Amino acid sequence: MDTETIQTLFPLVAGVLAVLFALYLARDVLRRDKGPQAMQDVGAVIREGADAFVKRQYTTIAVLAVVGAVIIGAVIGIVETEDVADVPSLAGSPIGLMTALAFLVGAGCSMLSGIIGMSISVRSNVRTASAARRSLVEAVQVAMRGGAVSGFLVVALSLLGVWAIFMAYQTFIGDVTVAEAPFLIVGFGFGASFVALFAQLGGGIYTKAADVGADLVGKVEAGIPEDDPRNAGVIADLVGDNVGDCAGRGADLFESTAAENIGAMILGVAAFAIASAAGWPNPEGWIFFPLVVRGFGLLATIIAVAFFIRGREDEDPMNILNRGYWATTALSVVGLAITTFFLMNTGDATGSNGIPAWVWFFFAGIVGLATSIAFVYITQYYTAGTFRPVREIAEASKTGPATNIISGIAVGYETTLVTAVTIGIALLASHWLGEQAGLVNEEGRNVGGIFGTAVATMGMLMTTAYILAMDTFGPITDNAGGIAEFSRAESSAREITDRLDAVGNTTKALTKGYAIASASLAAFLLFSAYIDKVNLIQRNRGGEPLDAVNLADVGVFVAALIATMLVYFFSSLAIRAVGKTAQSIIVEVRRQFREMPGIMDYTQKPDYARVVDITTRAALREMVAPGIVAVATPIAVGLLLGYEAVAGLLMVGTIAGVLLATVLNNGGGAWDNAKKFIEAGHLKDAAGNVLGKKTDAHAAAVVGDTVGDPFKDTAGPSLHVLVKLIATITLVLAPLFIR
Amino acid sequence: MDTETIQTLFPLVAGVLAVLFALYLARDVLRRDKGPQAMQDVGAVIREGADAFVKRQYTTIAVLAVVGAVIIGAVIGIVETEDVADVPSLAGSPIGLMTALAFLVGAGCSMLSGIIGMSISVRSNVRTASAARRSLVEAVQVAMRGGAVSGFLVVALSLLGVWAIFMAYQTFIGDVTVAEAPFLIVGFGFGASFVALFAQLGGGIYTKAADVGADLVGKVEAGIPEDDPRNAGVIADLVGDNVGDCAGRGADLFESTAAENIGAMILGVAAFAIASAAGWPNPEGWIFFPLVVRGFGLLATIIAVAFFIRGREDEDPMNILNRGYWATTALSVVGLAITTFFLMNTGDATGSNGIPAWVWFFFAGIVGLATSIAFVYITQYYTAGTFRPVREIAEASKTGPATNIISGIAVGYETTLVTAVTIGIALLASHWLGEQAGLVNEEGRNVGGIFGTAVATMGMLMTTAYILAMDTFGPITDNAGGIAEFSRAESSAREITDRLDAVGNTTKALTKGYAIASASLAAFLLFSAYIDKVNLIQRNRGGEPLDAVNLADVGVFVAALIATMLVYFFSSLAIRAVGKTAQSIIVEVRRQFREMPGIMDYTQKPDYARVVDITTRAALREMVAPGIVAVATPIAVGLLLGYEAVAGLLMVGTIAGVLLATVLNNGGGAWDNAKKFIEAGHLKDAAGNVLGKKTDAHAAAVVGDTVGDPFKDTAGPSLHVLVKLIATITLVLAPLFIR
Repeated sequence: MDTETIQTLFPLVAGVLAVLFALYLARDVLRRDKGPQAMQDVGAVIREGADAFVKRQYTTIAVLAVVGAVIIGAVIGIVETEDVADVPSLAGSPIGLMTALAFLVGAGCSMLSGIIGMSISVRSNVRTASAARRSLVEAVQVAMRGGAVSGFLVVALSLLGVWAIFMAYQTFIGDVTVAEAPFLIVGFGFGASFVALFAQLGGGIYTKAADVGADLVGKVEAGIPEDDPRNAGVIADLVGDNVGDCAGRGADLFESTAAENIGAMILGVAAFAIASAAGWPNPEGWIFFPLVVRGFGLLATIIAVAFFIRGREDEDPMNILNRGYWATTALSVVGLAITTFFLMNTGDATGSNGIPAWVWFFFAGIVGLATSIAFVYITQYYTAGTFRPVREIAEASKTGPATNIISGIAVGYETTLVTAVTIGIALLASHWLGEQAGLVNEEGRNVGGIFGTAVATMGMLMTTAYILAMDTFGPITDNAGGIAEFSRAESSAREITDRLDAVGNTTKALTKGYAIASASLAAFLLFSAYIDKVNLIQRNRGGEPLDAVNLADVGVFVAALIATMLVYFFSSLAIRAVGKTAQSIIVEVRRQFREMPGIMDYTQKPDYARVVDITTRAALREMVAPGIVAVATPIAVGLLLGYEAVAGLLMVGTIAGVLLATVLNNGGGAWDNAKKFIEAGHLKDAAGNVLGKKTDAHAAAVVGDTVGDPFKDTAGPSLHVLVKLIATITLVLAPLFIR
Repeated sequence: MDTETIQTLFPLVAGVLAVLFALYLARDVLRRDKGPQAMQDVGAVIREGADAFVKRQYTTIAVLAVVGAVIIGAVIGIVETEDVADVPSLAGSPIGLMTALAFLVGAGCSMLSGIIGMSISVRSNVRTASAARRSLVEAVQVAMRGGAVSGFLVVALSLLGVWAIFMAYQTFIGDVTVAEAPFLIVGFGFGASFVALFAQLGGGIYTKAADVGADLVGKVEAGIPEDDPRNAGVIADLVGDNVGDCAGRGADLFESTAAENIGAMILGVAAFAIASAAGWPNPEGWIFFPLVVRGFGLLATIIAVAFFIRGREDEDPMNILNRGYWATTALSVVGLAITTFFLMNTGDATGSNGIPAWVWFFFAGIVGLATSIAFVYITQYYTAGTFRPVREIAEASKTGPATNIISGIAVGYETTLVTAVTIGIALLASHWLGEQAGLVNEEGRNVGGIFGTAVATMGMLMTTAYILAMDTFGPITDNAGGIAEFSRAESSAREITDRLDAVGNTTKALTKGYAIASASLAAFLLFSAYIDKVNLIQRNRGGEPLDAVNLADVGVFVAALIATMLVYFFSSLAIRAVGKTAQSIIVEVRRQFREMPGIMDYTQKPDYARVVDITTRAALREMVAPGIVAVATPIAVGLLLGYEAVAGLLMVGTIAGVLLATVLNNGGGAWDNAKKFIEAGHLKDAAGNVLGKKTDAHAAAVVGDTVGDPFKDTAGPSLHVLVKLIATITLVLAPLFIR
């Protein structure tokens, strides 16, 4: 086989392998024992609650997606069919239908990976709890394998979906060329964003409303421990971990990989043109690059999960997970080298200093992998109890909840510094490396810089499946701990689940840092894809190309203002939704305590199902308003202020969204761990006495933790989705904004 | 006299009149009785504390300003002298010295107005308390007249300073023309920003650290009322009101009027060129416009303060102040009409639809005045207890401090919606109106749009003196209340001071809304001034003019990212400074309670001076780090990424800063008033019982109020200054960033 055939089929092979491996992992997890009946009972209740929520949620989302697809198909059919009437290969193609179909396939793949991943996750929790009765390493393996099902399915279905629709549009419809097809599949990214928006919002509202509500009535008011079976809200809380952290984050990263693949393929078109004109050996390689490199990422992760999740019983479980992460990263470097070498083949032509283009791009990809590692450590610094920020918040708790909050917000704001500087350096470095590759187009413009940032993004995203497996490890172990507590399992098992839960908190925080970093790196690539799309439309319509997005233009400035506002307003709606939903849970749990006095002495069983039901209904109701605002604002700005203003909205909205999400995620994580720091007995008063649980300092830290919950698990992650939704929505609807 | 002479001398006359009127008001206030000895004693202690702080603070600032002036003079002397070597009128002029001198005059005028205004403010408080023993209207008059001294001095000294240095450079130095002089005086704005940065930071840290510290130990821990003499931190708290709200906000608005006058004069140069070329009757009018319209604003305010601050004893004091505000606004409309008619005289030439240019600009100015009014009402809606947002926070207090905080943050984020939309409309409307005026330059570009936004800014700022008088009314009445409580004055007097204090809270919030709105409107004008300056330098150096600030450029994007980060990081430092300083106050007051047991039964007097001293030292120490970050970041970005990136930093930094300040100011104000709402007995539980003071809901609301304090009085107002500092620093140092 020649290189072209291999690079075309490789994404398919890698994707299928990953799906098969996910099925193997799922079977392996499901075969394991579910522990004593008490554990199985709780597990079953959680599973039912989660299934009920997901069923209702995904039904709602599916309806919204079908409506969305019809509208998008109609709009694109009307405004764009005429544009392509003079393009021989596209004239007469059902552009509207193709976009709508891509949208539906994107939405469908995202939902499918979410549903399967979560159904394994809610089955892995009880098995992890059971394994914890025997062995730490076994428990880590069960939880990590359960999590990896999500990780592999998300990345593989995203890859297979993009690959399939790209191949279909390129091969079977009309005379579409490989250079035109990337523009036709942007609907896939929008479909993925659309599902992610509602999955993350609904799941995020559910999980944190249940958590805040259950904690406030249980821990603070009734004085009973977390996950105590007397608390009517506790099952909803355990359900929430799955629907928020697992299904929500999965949809978020599904969207990232899909949108950023497509964006990079669009940028590849410019490189393809240069390569074709210059007669380089493999022009199509530039377009296939994102798909192939992602395939290597999957292979790297399969090897890491299969062979590197091992360790000793007395080892820090985080070390076991880190071993797998470093293995994935090291194998990704090899994959990156192979991909750049074969797909970015410039023949005899070289870049700066006589170094071939592929070497420059290889290093750009390394910048991406390095950024990923940097964010892993940055997040740890800001959210782990061993470092200054968390200690500072714990200290401030001594003077009450107000100083705890002030200190936590100061820490949250502070985290933007190293985030912005790291992203800035990564962008400038990968852009500079790309510029050295010598990709100069027919107008004499060097397009390598932007392609360099795209390669960096692709490099960073190679480890997505592994990161997502670690992320889903979080809710599984969190649930396992809850199940152990709830079923009053032996203390040795609880000790192990507590250790895993602490690790899970770290991995969940890491994933958010990773998602943020990839969204920022990708901003530039999606922005450039938007400009390429606009210029393609303008070429078809005979309009002026968009050379610059001028901030000195009053429309662009106002759009930037609106973008920054949107980020705050959307977060406000998301946070308020949690507050509202939590208050209705609090009222219900209080009512049960009051009207069912037997609950406190275990003679009466609380009505868990009622709380689950209230939370489900409230969360689905509350996700609508922020969802509409997110979708409507970019469209309104595009219609009122035009396509250049939309570009400003996209860029400044990304910056504002990424940094506010950083504030919310890291602030929330630091508050959480400041509480854990105090609970672990690390805080001492002036006389050296430990200020642990039941002290005023601990009560103050609980307030901070509660405030941080909707920040880090609802608004922050929803902002990741918002940022990418703005990118995909403007990419799809660009023809509408050009008048 | 001809129009030219009148418009040249009018700012001088209006400025001098305002200073004389301020002196008259000061004499009038000082003549009034100071009440019984108990009041005078407290008043004297506050005065001494404030004087001591201001003396040390302004000494520090003066030293920093002199160092700054030397550096700026040297840098500009080195990089710009060569640029102007070929400009006949400027060749050989000591450009560096002129910029340094302008910087020092700006810094000096700002400090002078701050020192005098505050020294009257700390003398008005005790006289207001005394007047409250007799009459509400008299107390309002004393407080308002005391506040107006600050208001008039700030605006008049800013106007006179800009006028004097402009006239000096235009008349006495070399052959500088009226079109060149505006570029030479930008140092004045930078000097004003520089002082404002440290005045606002130092004052803001002092006031809120004292407030938070005193409240947490007094109200929350010891359970004694606010302003109780047994609390050792209470005097520091009363001192803080003056140094933060009065001196700090005065310096903030001094800077606004100065920087925006200069920016508008720079834009006027383009209009001057058009007018000269077209042979319009009064080309210089376009440059003098900002100064003349500001003079009319001062006259309008003099009339309003002299004749409209009256009312009935049983009237809502806010009505009395509003009467004056509406009178100022109405008279400003007249002044605006006169100024536009005479100074924007285009002879026979007309704009769109045959309507003269001055009419279009008159309406642009009206847009500015209307924006000011809109912000007055928006701020009231979000921070007054009669409306939904504050009620929502009060309701959320029922479920504890965590939900109170979550709800307050949601409200704070929400306030960005109407803020951004209002500013967006104002910018688009004034820009559109300006475009209709027909100001087309020799390259065929319509420069009227940007000039329209400048006129709107000028219109808005016409009422600055009155707004600032209302603002200073706040700390004076706050202090009067404290003095009445502290000196155990008769309850009728305390009742009146309580009513005035509540109004003062509203007026302080209004001023912040006003400062935000003016900063946003001005962003566009200062940005355009920066571009004009860059293009002037490029013309001198034979470089390419800056046509567009392209967000798609990686340097501009990274600068925008850094700008947004700067806003958060700077706020983090400011908030943390308050937390740190407050903790040291808490430790000290606790120590006094512990070691001096007689304090609680009034047999021992707390050591107020020691707390004042601790606060002073800590606040001055803590203002250094955020100050350095604010000054260093734009310079670093300029040196590393160049002048186009700096333009991105300026624009996106303004947007991010304005909206984060909105969040902090309004969130803080809403928390404050949610607490007051509960204290006033408006919150009821499900059974209809009032949840007032001493309930858990109230304790939760106190936490929110405390968290909001450093937001609304330290970080928020400091962000206003930061935003304008970025504008003036880049304007002055632009030659350094062009390579």
